[in-house]
Amino acid sequence: MDCIFCKIVSGDIPSLKIFEDKKVLAFLDIGPLADGHLLVIPKNHYEKLDEMTEEDITAIAAVLPRLAKALIQATGAEGYNLLQNTGECAGQVVKHVHFHLIPRKPNDGLGYRWPAKKYPEGKDKEIQQKIISQLNS
Amino acid sequence: MDCIFCKIVSGDIPSLKIFEDKKVLAFLDIGPLADGHLLVIPKNHYEKLDEMTEEDITAIAAVLPRLAKALIQATGAEGYNLLQNTGECAGQVVKHVHFHLIPRKPNDGLGYRWPAKKYPEGKDKEIQQKIISQLNS
Repeated sequence: MDCIFCKIVSGDIPSLKIFEDKKVLAFLDIGPLADGHLLVIPKNHYEKLDEMTEEDITAIAAVLPRLAKALIQATGAEGYNLLQNTGECAGQVVKHVHFHLIPRKPNDGLGYRWPAKKYPEGKDKEIQQKIISQLNS
Repeated sequence: MDCIFCKIVSGDIPSLKIFEDKKVLAFLDIGPLADGHLLVIPKNHYEKLDEMTEEDITAIAAVLPRLAKALIQATGAEGYNLLQNTGECAGQVVKHVHFHLIPRKPNDGLGYRWPAKKYPEGKDKEIQQKIISQLNS
C-alpha cells in the first residue's frame, strides 16, 4: 500500500494527532484552510465513503460531535463545516476517505460555492424515483 | 416549534422523500446545486452537529454509504460532497442540523473554496495541544 494516510495510521509518517481509538484517527491537516482544520479518517483503508462498512463510518460519526465542540472551544471559531469529498471531480486528492472539519469565522472567505437552481416541472419527482429505485435494487 | 425541517418530518410540509427510518429522513433539496442533491436529517431536532447524540449521528452515518451509492447510480455523477454547515458563518440557513449530499461531475463549478495555508513554526503544535485540552476537559 502506497497510501499516505495508511502510513500516518501506522506511524510511518508523523502527524499531529488529536484523537485516536481502535477505528478512527483525527489529526491536523498540514495545509489548513483555517487554524485547527482537522482530518478524521478510518484506520481501515477505503477510497470512497460509499465503500465504508457501517461499523467504520459510525465509529467516525460517533466522535464528530466531541471533536467539533473541542474545535470551537480551542479556536474561537463560531461555526464549522464538515466536508467529505469522494472522487477527483469532487476535490478528493488523497485516495483514503477523509472527513474535513473546518472551523469557520464570519467573512473568512471559505465555504461551499452555492449557485442553487430550481428543478424544471416534474424533473424532481423523476430523479426521486430513480434514486429510490437504485436504493432498493 | 417553528422549524421547517421538523414540519417536513411530521408531514405538515411536503417533501420528496428518498429514505426514512425511525431516526433519519432523506429528501431532495428544493434548491439543488445539482440534480439529486439530497438532505439527510435526524428526525429529532438539533441546531448543531455538536449537540447531536451518538445514537442520532450514527443513525445518519449508517445510511450515508447506501445513499451515496444510489445517488451516483441514479444521476450518473462521478463523485459527491458530503457537507454539513454548523453556524450562520459556515453557511447554515435552516437551524435543524442537515447533511448535504451533493452529486459532482467534472467542471460543474461547484465545490469548496480552497485557499490552503501553512502554519507558522510551532503554531500547529500549539493548536494541537489546545484542541486536545478541550477534548479532555
